[in-house]
Amino acid sequence: MTTLEDCRALDAQDPLGALRGQFILPDGVIYLDGNSLGVLPKAAPARIAEVVAAEWGQGLIRSWNTAGWFDLPQRLGDKVARLIGAAPGEVVCTDSTSVNLYKVLFAALSQQKQHAGRRLVVSERSNFPTDLYIAESLCRERGFTLKLVDEGELPAVLTEEVAVLMLTHVNYRTGAMHDMKAVTAAAHAVGALTVWDLAHSAGAVPVALNDSQADYAIGCGYKYLNGGPGAPAFAWVHTKHAGQFEQPLSGWWGHAAPFEFTPHYRPAPGVGRYLCGTQPIIALAGLECGIDSVLAAEAFDGGRGSMAALRTKSLALTDLFIALVEARCAGHGLSLVTPREPARRGSQVCLSRNEGAYAIVQALIARGVIGDYRAGDAQMPDILRFGFTPLYLGFEDVWNAVEHLVQVLETGEWRRAEFNQKNAVT
Amino acid sequence: MTTLEDCRALDAQDPLGALRGQFILPDGVIYLDGNSLGVLPKAAPARIAEVVAAEWGQGLIRSWNTAGWFDLPQRLGDKVARLIGAAPGEVVCTDSTSVNLYKVLFAALSQQKQHAGRRLVVSERSNFPTDLYIAESLCRERGFTLKLVDEGELPAVLTEEVAVLMLTHVNYRTGAMHDMKAVTAAAHAVGALTVWDLAHSAGAVPVALNDSQADYAIGCGYKYLNGGPGAPAFAWVHTKHAGQFEQPLSGWWGHAAPFEFTPHYRPAPGVGRYLCGTQPIIALAGLECGIDSVLAAEAFDGGRGSMAALRTKSLALTDLFIALVEARCAGHGLSLVTPREPARRGSQVCLSRNEGAYAIVQALIARGVIGDYRAGDAQMPDILRFGFTPLYLGFEDVWNAVEHLVQVLETGEWRRAEFNQKNAVT
Repeated sequence: MTTLEDCRALDAQDPLGALRGQFILPDGVIYLDGNSLGVLPKAAPARIAEVVAAEWGQGLIRSWNTAGWFDLPQRLGDKVARLIGAAPGEVVCTDSTSVNLYKVLFAALSQQKQHAGRRLVVSERSNFPTDLYIAESLCRERGFTLKLVDEGELPAVLTEEVAVLMLTHVNYRTGAMHDMKAVTAAAHAVGALTVWDLAHSAGAVPVALNDSQADYAIGCGYKYLNGGPGAPAFAWVHTKHAGQFEQPLSGWWGHAAPFEFTPHYRPAPGVGRYLCGTQPIIALAGLECGIDSVLAAEAFDGGRGSMAALRTKSLALTDLFIALVEARCAGHGLSLVTPREPARRGSQVCLSRNEGAYAIVQALIARGVIGDYRAGDAQMPDILRFGFTPLYLGFEDVWNAVEHLVQVLETGEWRRAEFNQKNAVT
Repeated sequence: MTTLEDCRALDAQDPLGALRGQFILPDGVIYLDGNSLGVLPKAAPARIAEVVAAEWGQGLIRSWNTAGWFDLPQRLGDKVARLIGAAPGEVVCTDSTSVNLYKVLFAALSQQKQHAGRRLVVSERSNFPTDLYIAESLCRERGFTLKLVDEGELPAVLTEEVAVLMLTHVNYRTGAMHDMKAVTAAAHAVGALTVWDLAHSAGAVPVALNDSQADYAIGCGYKYLNGGPGAPAFAWVHTKHAGQFEQPLSGWWGHAAPFEFTPHYRPAPGVGRYLCGTQPIIALAGLECGIDSVLAAEAFDGGRGSMAALRTKSLALTDLFIALVEARCAGHGLSLVTPREPARRGSQVCLSRNEGAYAIVQALIARGVIGDYRAGDAQMPDILRFGFTPLYLGFEDVWNAVEHLVQVLETGEWRRAEFNQKNAVT
């Protein structure tokens, strides 16, 4: 059984421990919600202030050229590419995750529209809702049917009728991770294209888009990439598809020559056409600081690729959390929802409980242990969700989080009224 | 003939002169490009720093509730509403202008799709290109035809075949302004809906959306609203249309209850459904400072509505610029492109010249007089464009700008090679 002293020893030996110094973390907080909103890189306030005061305030319109504003979506995209198994020139940082999903799913459906028998878009019922909402809208407008399945129904549900398989790589609620390469191969075997949402993957787990032969992917800038609240998202398109057609949000920023001001649209070559309107410069500057904070882990990687060292630590943290909860919270009705097998686990651990999940999360937050709660439904009980970001969490943090959980459960403090009032976001 | 002393006297009497103190302006610059990128409000650096350090860094995920992040799109929308003749609850600040145009034009086309004979979207050939690109994409996908006309062809071109008339209220290149109420009435008379782009209107000229009975409008946050580079844009929908259907970018932020995480989309009532993904909080904080800088003019308004005092000064500035250019630059080949009639003029003045327009603009920029250049085409010669923002420009600025223009023309310095090399943005 691991002890507090063991945890301290693990931290002392941890080469990644120094990366925590990149961040500003509130005192007295153990932050297990980096999967919802990443923390503040120390570099961000100064960089954002520079963009505001010098580039905007002094440079004004001239900064589009002199401060490199035009290149930001691609320059940041090239950095994200290193984290998701993509190549330079294949990724842009822009717009929101939902808007980017609309673009790539539209693109995938357009590629399939000549196949009259392919009219299904398959996704998981437990996928993040915004993905399902966007797919619902596009399917209705473009003559496809959205078929929602349970995780266990894949890959059996894949048939020649499937146009697109749209999945989130790591499930937001359970932390279960798909085998991207195997699932993509199964989809391709029936002629379907794949659209991957990397919201809970980019910066959290290794992703190998090109090696997996995936077709389209989008992801989030404000979770594990630490880009700031509502940071721009990213979009990736396999080079074999990127130049094939115009995406529907055909704004001037995706034009081959936006400053020719021609009345007709001519898409930029490659992924540049996935841009739409004028880009949010201040937000992109914040995002760059966040991406850089993740790329800093490359130094500890021994050439294995950026996410290898982070993944090793992430699994050690989640292994430890699972072991400590099972050893120390036994008899308190908690069940492990996240897969125990490392290959199927993201960088989070979710526990379920028939009663009181919301109140327990609130009691932990009151103690400075910030995780979150996700309501259950017919398929799934209420969940306590804990994200583990190896960039800034250590083994002692895990120990302390479990210690607080033990105390909340053993004292029954979660039964107090103040922890039982639900509100919009936890 | 107005003299420099007259200009100084006008500034001394100008009640709006104090508003300039709200902004940080670079030394030695006369900024006549606020129609391309507005200047930095003094309040913005501190407010943005607070959002970054305190709300993001310390509050983290809790700030969605404790810092009011959820309400930002609507709260800022209510402020913009005061500038465009709309009511509280009718506007949201979100996404880019191009993305918002896609949403509202899609909505307008959806309303017209049951009328089989109405298959035209009419716009001006000289409209801002991104508007035409978005319309081109939507028309192609949804079975409509985009018909581009010259300004003089309106309203004759309006027939029962027209589904939507999509116009920019103030033309980006000429500064010509439409009579929104009359044009909307003409469109409605044939059963067409109107979509207005207010990119060069909001914060620049009075707009009366509800009084004009307009149907849809979108606009830009980073021009006259001083929201910062690539700031979020806004969308307005007449209340009679706002709750009628789902817009296509049906992300979770436009859901009636986003945190219920239901698998099916249920749109929020009213304009809230025009939101899509998670909102860019830092960018919205910057935008709010910009909007507030315009609303500060309400204090000088005598109850006439926010834009009345600004409009009076704007016309005085552009009148003066026109008069001084015509008096002092006569014989140098400059022609006035912007309408001379006040009711048809936005807050900018555009001049054309058969030769050297680009180089003259460059020579002015080198002297610290920042305007911009727009290339001509078959319909229109090359243009020197000067935006006049009464919030921070005075009459002496106008005098000095013309003095520099006189010197550039009389010395022929614009003929030097350094001013004749075109690049992407001027």
